Amino acid sequence: MKPNIHLPLTIILLTFLLLSGCGQTQNNPGNQTDWALALHGGAGTISPDMPDSLKQQYYDGLRQALRVGEIILREGGSALDAVEAVVRNLEDNPLFNAGHGSVFTSEGKHELDAAIMDGSTLAAGALTGLTTVKNPVSLARIVMEESPHIFFSGSGAEEFASQTGVERVDNDYFHTDSRYIQWRRTQPDNAFQYHEEWLEGDKFGTVGAVALDAGGRLAAATSTGGMTNKRFGRVGDVPIIGSGTFANHLVAISATGWGEQIMRNVSANTIANYMEFRNTSVDDAMNYVLTERLNPGDAGFVAVDRKGNISMQMNTLGMYRGSINSRGEHVVMIWETE
Amino acid sequence: MKPNIHLPLTIILLTFLLLSGCGQTQNNPGNQTDWALALHGGAGTISPDMPDSLKQQYYDGLRQALRVGEIILREGGSALDAVEAVVRNLEDNPLFNAGHGSVFTSEGKHELDAAIMDGSTLAAGALTGLTTVKNPVSLARIVMEESPHIFFSGSGAEEFASQTGVERVDNDYFHTDSRYIQWRRTQPDNAFQYHEEWLEGDKFGTVGAVALDAGGRLAAATSTGGMTNKRFGRVGDVPIIGSGTFANHLVAISATGWGEQIMRNVSANTIANYMEFRNTSVDDAMNYVLTERLNPGDAGFVAVDRKGNISMQMNTLGMYRGSINSRGEHVVMIWETE
Repeated sequence: MKPNIHLPLTIILLTFLLLSGCGQTQNNPGNQTDWALALHGGAGTISPDMPDSLKQQYYDGLRQALRVGEIILREGGSALDAVEAVVRNLEDNPLFNAGHGSVFTSEGKHELDAAIMDGSTLAAGALTGLTTVKNPVSLARIVMEESPHIFFSGSGAEEFASQTGVERVDNDYFHTDSRYIQWRRTQPDNAFQYHEEWLEGDKFGTVGAVALDAGGRLAAATSTGGMTNKRFGRVGDVPIIGSGTFANHLVAISATGWGEQIMRNVSANTIANYMEFRNTSVDDAMNYVLTERLNPGDAGFVAVDRKGNISMQMNTLGMYRGSINSRGEHVVMIWETE
Repeated sequence: MKPNIHLPLTIILLTFLLLSGCGQTQNNPGNQTDWALALHGGAGTISPDMPDSLKQQYYDGLRQALRVGEIILREGGSALDAVEAVVRNLEDNPLFNAGHGSVFTSEGKHELDAAIMDGSTLAAGALTGLTTVKNPVSLARIVMEESPHIFFSGSGAEEFASQTGVERVDNDYFHTDSRYIQWRRTQPDNAFQYHEEWLEGDKFGTVGAVALDAGGRLAAATSTGGMTNKRFGRVGDVPIIGSGTFANHLVAISATGWGEQIMRNVSANTIANYMEFRNTSVDDAMNYVLTERLNPGDAGFVAVDRKGNISMQMNTLGMYRGSINSRGEHVVMIWETE
């Protein structure tokens, strides 16, 4: 019975492999992850006193979006396909400030921004001031793949949309009663007191996703309805490659928070550069930007690196976020601890 | 005759001081410069066979713009005032693709972009798709100083302009016959072959300036008429904080070249981060981005750091550029050597 001679050795070996597998964490750079996905649904002053039923709706929304990306990545789909599909799902969810459920501008309308970037090629597509495109992230993908340009704004962006098969809607489609009430509350106030408004509550959320696929490619996508009561034509950080959205061969990053602060610090690119030039982990690079560059209350980020390490940090009270990877590790969270 | 005893020693000492002074270059970080200014008027395939009379016009234009900034900085004015005034001067000069003399869009119109950034505060202002503002850089300054936002696009930008005292013009003001002929030549071609067109000649110039003032503050400003035959609503690198324009406490940078390449590499911010995180000179950081990130023919940059070191490099055949500092060092150049 020659095979049996090796049985005890085989058991020891298998036990060792299983145990060392159990010791792996989401942030162990020594262990290659086949695929990984992280997403956010906005950061800000999210009250922990939120009713449990609403909390549950957010958790469910984050889990549904993770599931959409998981199916694509598990079946060997691309990081680009995953982040586009995840962001579409969040755009369609009225809970989040992107697509259906976007906030109102100072004119009582909706203007949407989005961007997508392929880290393996540095190809990117971005749009600002969309008013009739149901899923801005999908138009950003078309810009990336079919135009020699990266970024279109306003009526030029709408005209570009008309030359594609992208789904169009009336601007009213983006209306939700909760965002309308939120906007109306801002009306008697000075429209210029944005930061104060922001500190008072969730007035400018964003949705975003970052992914590593089994082929080792990274991608990032971000989409937003902007800032409640923002002025007509204001461009925030979301469509700015390097600020709200960035991906290269090392890391993919999506930001959320006070757009002007994220832009003036070119936050996503600075995280990527710090990682590369200082040879740090994605966790350390994100922490550097959140603590050394930005101020408390400014922003949150989700990122994934080429090893599948996921980082999700914010210097705000809360950030709707979640992640999953091919090792089956998954989490959805809103506050620092819960 | 006691004093005479020391005469030979004094001569030796003076000679040494003079010689070590002569050894100073514009890139010696050990010597603080009171103020410094660099500017560009676009980079690309600029033919050295250009007629001498035209060459002289470019040199004269660059010198005039340098003189405008020199007067401000010599009298203790701010880096911000200097870069705004220099860029206004270049916008008004029909030789350069910004303001009067801007290139034509695919619709035969003019759409202008500009940005300005104060390195001492990270305050910034940017605009895209302007059609009636005579000096876009001055409106960018107003956005920076009077709006809680950084960046406005298209009709929102025009509406913002209407609430300020900024000088307006008809879109025809930007017309020059030479740019019109250039645009007409592109019409039979495929509008999507931008890179090929670019390699054929100067089709998307930019103007920009960077300055260090006597108070140690840095600022950058950039302005452009965009890319000949560009599509309506295309946003290039110029108004993207971190790509075409960036300034912080260490360095101020303005880019010119193929906007999409500059954007996907977040070029200006990557130069600043490389300098800071790798602790290199501005020359080395600019060289890194031009050789390791960008491709030959893509771009050029001008930059000044907080010590007054000036760097002006390109990976194109030529770049209209010039610099001057408080030590009286000044240069205007178009090609690598001349």
